Amino acid sequence: MAIEIERKFLVNHDLWNELDKPIPNFLKQGYLSTNPEKTLRVRATDDKGFITIKGKTQGMSRLEFEYEIPKDEALALLDNFTEQNIEKYRYLITHKEKTWEVDVFQGANEGLIVAEIELSSETEAFDIPIWAYMEVTDDPRYYNSRLSIKPYSSWQ
Amino acid sequence: MAIEIERKFLVNHDLWNELDKPIPNFLKQGYLSTNPEKTLRVRATDDKGFITIKGKTQGMSRLEFEYEIPKDEALALLDNFTEQNIEKYRYLITHKEKTWEVDVFQGANEGLIVAEIELSSETEAFDIPIWAYMEVTDDPRYYNSRLSIKPYSSWQ
Repeated sequence: MAIEIERKFLVNHDLWNELDKPIPNFLKQGYLSTNPEKTLRVRATDDKGFITIKGKTQGMSRLEFEYEIPKDEALALLDNFTEQNIEKYRYLITHKEKTWEVDVFQGANEGLIVAEIELSSETEAFDIPIWAYMEVTDDPRYYNSRLSIKPYSSWQ
Repeated sequence: MAIEIERKFLVNHDLWNELDKPIPNFLKQGYLSTNPEKTLRVRATDDKGFITIKGKTQGMSRLEFEYEIPKDEALALLDNFTEQNIEKYRYLITHKEKTWEVDVFQGANEGLIVAEIELSSETEAFDIPIWAYMEVTDDPRYYNSRLSIKPYSSWQ
């Protein structure tokens, strides 16, 4: 159990393309529950699986419970229980001693690049990289659970 | 991942009361999703916790994924994410070399005693104990997920 505090920004594609980047991890994830008060996510990474239950976002904070499971079971859960899955490449980018997770979405969410930083308190100071141009922490359209139902390509 | 095949019977209270019984395990469980196509159960036993995802029942069979988690996290999940929890004493009763799980429900489901046997195939033969008097495998009212929403005491 943990309290997850994170802030989320859109990424400028041109500046992102110019950046030196590490090898990303490919993530496939889906939602057994997209209820924002109790989201249940199943995720498969390159070599692991996870079940994550998240509570309602309050400000920037959210209660989170995460459990590692075998990758093949995560894929079986996605096959059996979720309909529209999210696929994205995740890059870990270090900027001013902080790690940013930058998600480059694929499939129905292609065109969307989102950067997240996890904080230890809501008031923690941090530097926003030049390639992160607009904060969307409070915008529910960018919740991954919402993107699985209403993907970026379907937006007006 | 497993296929769960089980049959469920109501238990005669008088015959049950006369039986020699082992010490039961106390189970507290709730549902983050009661959707019968993807039930998500959190359970705390005397010393462990579990997250279990079950698929739709087809005949007597059901796809099941179960993961052990720390008991204190199971209790925190129940506190934070479920409203009406089920509490029951579970007795493991051996009858003709098979183990029956007999659940004596408490709280809003008090008065209900249900026995379940897990089988390795739908056609496996087994002996029904004298204290198990009526099969309810196919009756959705007795699904634990349903009992958490519409408890026995609220039935007409």
